[in-house]
Amino acid sequence: MNVNRACVVGVDFGTLSGRAVVVRVADGRQLGTAVHAYSHGVIEDRLPGSEVRLGPSWALQSPSDWVDVLRNAVPEALAAAGVSPGDVIGIGTDFTACTVLPTLADGTPLCDVDGLADRPHAWPKLWKHHAAQAQADRINAVAAERNEAWLPRYGGKISSEWEFAKALQLLEEDPELYERTERWIEAADWIIWQLTGQESRNVCTAGYKGIHQDGQYPSRDYLAALHPGFVDFTAKLEHPLSGLGAVAGGLTAQAAAWTGLAEGTTVAVGNVDAHVTAAAADAVRPGQLVAIMGTSTCHVMSSEQPANVPGMCGVVWEGIVPGLWGYEAGQSGVGDIFGWFVDSAVPPAYVAEAERRGQTVHEYLTTLAEAQPVGRHGLVALDWHNGNRSVLVDHDLSGVIVGQTLATRPEDTYRALIEATAFGTRTIVEAFESSGVPVGEFVAAGGLLKNKFLLQTYADVLRRPISVIGADQGPALGSAIHAAVAAKAYPDITTAAAAMGHRTEAAYLPDADRADRYDQLFAIYHELHDHFGAQAPGSTDVLHRLRTIRNEVAR
Amino acid sequence: MNVNRACVVGVDFGTLSGRAVVVRVADGRQLGTAVHAYSHGVIEDRLPGSEVRLGPSWALQSPSDWVDVLRNAVPEALAAAGVSPGDVIGIGTDFTACTVLPTLADGTPLCDVDGLADRPHAWPKLWKHHAAQAQADRINAVAAERNEAWLPRYGGKISSEWEFAKALQLLEEDPELYERTERWIEAADWIIWQLTGQESRNVCTAGYKGIHQDGQYPSRDYLAALHPGFVDFTAKLEHPLSGLGAVAGGLTAQAAAWTGLAEGTTVAVGNVDAHVTAAAADAVRPGQLVAIMGTSTCHVMSSEQPANVPGMCGVVWEGIVPGLWGYEAGQSGVGDIFGWFVDSAVPPAYVAEAERRGQTVHEYLTTLAEAQPVGRHGLVALDWHNGNRSVLVDHDLSGVIVGQTLATRPEDTYRALIEATAFGTRTIVEAFESSGVPVGEFVAAGGLLKNKFLLQTYADVLRRPISVIGADQGPALGSAIHAAVAAKAYPDITTAAAAMGHRTEAAYLPDADRADRYDQLFAIYHELHDHFGAQAPGSTDVLHRLRTIRNEVAR
Repeated sequence: MNVNRACVVGVDFGTLSGRAVVVRVADGRQLGTAVHAYSHGVIEDRLPGSEVRLGPSWALQSPSDWVDVLRNAVPEALAAAGVSPGDVIGIGTDFTACTVLPTLADGTPLCDVDGLADRPHAWPKLWKHHAAQAQADRINAVAAERNEAWLPRYGGKISSEWEFAKALQLLEEDPELYERTERWIEAADWIIWQLTGQESRNVCTAGYKGIHQDGQYPSRDYLAALHPGFVDFTAKLEHPLSGLGAVAGGLTAQAAAWTGLAEGTTVAVGNVDAHVTAAAADAVRPGQLVAIMGTSTCHVMSSEQPANVPGMCGVVWEGIVPGLWGYEAGQSGVGDIFGWFVDSAVPPAYVAEAERRGQTVHEYLTTLAEAQPVGRHGLVALDWHNGNRSVLVDHDLSGVIVGQTLATRPEDTYRALIEATAFGTRTIVEAFESSGVPVGEFVAAGGLLKNKFLLQTYADVLRRPISVIGADQGPALGSAIHAAVAAKAYPDITTAAAAMGHRTEAAYLPDADRADRYDQLFAIYHELHDHFGAQAPGSTDVLHRLRTIRNEVAR
Repeated sequence: MNVNRACVVGVDFGTLSGRAVVVRVADGRQLGTAVHAYSHGVIEDRLPGSEVRLGPSWALQSPSDWVDVLRNAVPEALAAAGVSPGDVIGIGTDFTACTVLPTLADGTPLCDVDGLADRPHAWPKLWKHHAAQAQADRINAVAAERNEAWLPRYGGKISSEWEFAKALQLLEEDPELYERTERWIEAADWIIWQLTGQESRNVCTAGYKGIHQDGQYPSRDYLAALHPGFVDFTAKLEHPLSGLGAVAGGLTAQAAAWTGLAEGTTVAVGNVDAHVTAAAADAVRPGQLVAIMGTSTCHVMSSEQPANVPGMCGVVWEGIVPGLWGYEAGQSGVGDIFGWFVDSAVPPAYVAEAERRGQTVHEYLTTLAEAQPVGRHGLVALDWHNGNRSVLVDHDLSGVIVGQTLATRPEDTYRALIEATAFGTRTIVEAFESSGVPVGEFVAAGGLLKNKFLLQTYADVLRRPISVIGADQGPALGSAIHAAVAAKAYPDITTAAAAMGHRTEAAYLPDADRADRYDQLFAIYHELHDHFGAQAPGSTDVLHRLRTIRNEVAR
């Protein structure tokens, strides 16, 4: 094989679709790409082919959709690239996380086992499944009481989105199914199993989502204190962990047939969408905070030191790149909030005008919103419509908007929601810095990059320049970079990222006048954040009370 | 004239239109009605025929629109009734209040004086003109400091909507025009001037909107303390006051030509829409609280005792009927909030589905909303989108909604807004009762009566039966009743109301289960109310800060 023609394939498994890219190893150039939408999408209402309804805050996926990405998007991307299988030296993948499923010992998802398809807990729980908050609350209370050493690594709170809360919900709500669960595995690792025919587990999800710290999972004593039946839970997880950029195995004949790649092609260990994006942005050095801004936002940054930052999703040794501590923070709802607003709160006249202009409704609202001076709309919102991941780690929180009047227009609220997400990001950046973890560069990636007004707002609110990733398909490129490392084309991720990743430094600069005004609005956001987030003396639990009432009534 | 054929005309001047009814004196039966829409509507953006733009929170009207109601709606109603002028023994009117204008000594509005039409302050300020909050704040601060005896009659706060705040704004922002203002007069009295050719002033607006208490207006010392130029302000108001149901004069030849009535027909003194409605509902006895629910809601009730109820709009001797103390409270935005929501926050699919069903969007949203159990939407809103009249008397407040998620649908928010207005009403009823003014019967009137779900919600939230007015056109009928009293067909308003007014007692009964759930939501509303209304220890001024920022930026 000619080294200049060497390629890698990266596959990014998202919330609604999967994308494959074929990338040149030498410089990261994208040669071809293809998307395959999940036919089941997000399963929130009722199970596929069934009348069984799901409760509030449930969100599932179908494993068959993921395999369909391998069968469709990968061969299409290869065809688009005009690349022959012989030129592909490796394949890497990334996944949403924590998306987790129960399987048999051979990796068969329980939802594919005869007779179990109508059991909600047999299906993979998507990252945004938020129905395990009660379990997360107990996980946190018991850990705090027992002073578990791993708790501070997670900002003092384990999320209801993660492996333990979702598994404990399974145990409590469907104990028989829990017993039949032989493996409890991240989709990130399950997809590698499908490619290589053998189980592997990556350090990243084990650390960030599986409470694996300092070489071990939580103790049996701790698990027994949560629930007597949970004492052996980690047996469903135990497996040697693989470092990022390592080899998981070679492509099986079946997976080769699915993908059109050669049998035995190097497969990199599983990884997470946000974490691989840092490599795609060539931003894996200490202090480079990468914000992957899409339906939700994930913030990843490496540092030479471990520190206890309030409300971090996790601090994991080698969680992003080998040799450094990896930090992860997040915002549960960002683009999802704007999407919700556009779908459910924009009147016909706006939709018609957007169409007349040849704009999307998002673009039209942005056009109207960006014409306003800062503060003109008189609004401040809390961006908790999908809960709060950082720094409060509380998915029973919900959205708040204050200041609406009879003169409030859709573009006003839309702008306030964009600003709210910027204030949420500022809250996270300030948590890093006040905990002694300096943020040297803010690097933006993800689908929201297409909204220049949003990025300028972030620059103004953060009072710092914003760099942007130079690749369209960040996660898929990042997976491809990891594939190149696994295939030994580069000695490590940092070197590979420098060669194959791209970013534009200081693409957006803050404006001092706007930043001053935003400081006033941020002060209000901060006050509401601490009040409704129950973080300040005299704060309120009304959002929790409303959630409790809603859940009682929904039963 | 045959007594059985004796009729009266009532004319109701609303926010967007005026309505005339012709009513039989014997039993209040409506014989004919007509509506005339104001061609200028509410002037909020720019002055008519001018490029002069208005500031935020301004709301003006055109006097010509009011006269057009006399010229169009009255003759049309007479024609519809098939009544000859000889059968009409009197005409009565009611108006929005405080809607107030500057005139020359002969009653000519300043906006009709050559060269003044492009001066915003020359125009009548509509009740919902909210740009005089700074003046109201000073009026209240100085009155509190000086311990003015009249202040407790207004719940401790004078509204920015009323005569003094609006006049002080005129003085401060256009002092020359203030000097040219010879009379500062309620539209309720100005329209009587047009009918009778002579100035008159009614006790109701003088008391509720003009701070006339115990026989006098505020003192010169007090006015001087507000502003040196304001010392002689009450000279622009001074005039003998007339009791409700009294005769203001006889119809002039010109007004007879406008209306088609006979010259000299008895004209009752001016009155206010809400206050005359109590007569139309036959609910003028002590303890009968009449809520006139439309774009905003006004609550009127008479009592034998004066008491200091927090946040009352006013307690006025003979303010509703002679011989009793009249109480008035209000909610600045009710139907206006629902209208704002339907116009600006309902997506095309809902509008299309409503049309397909042959429903209005309001009706369709109500259909969806009423199918939900109480609390299912997980939301609580503060109904302050147009400020708060009672019990906080603060028009710089604004709306709040908490609990929105990505699953929140338009009908959820719509229902939460309906509930918020019910909670606002409960806050007012509780203020009456905790101040020793018992509410014996809750009587609903106004345009929102057409929404049965809304009324049932009010019954459930208030935990009490709701009676409803039995007339379609409450204010106009109430004005007609006052005309019958002025014309001496009845000895007093109570007797006339019993003969001509109508209501259905206990038309809606509370449901205990729903009421229990609403108690939980009301507890949250109450907490948010006191927090954002700055009424509790540790409460917040964020709504005021947002308003200040907005106003600074708008300049």
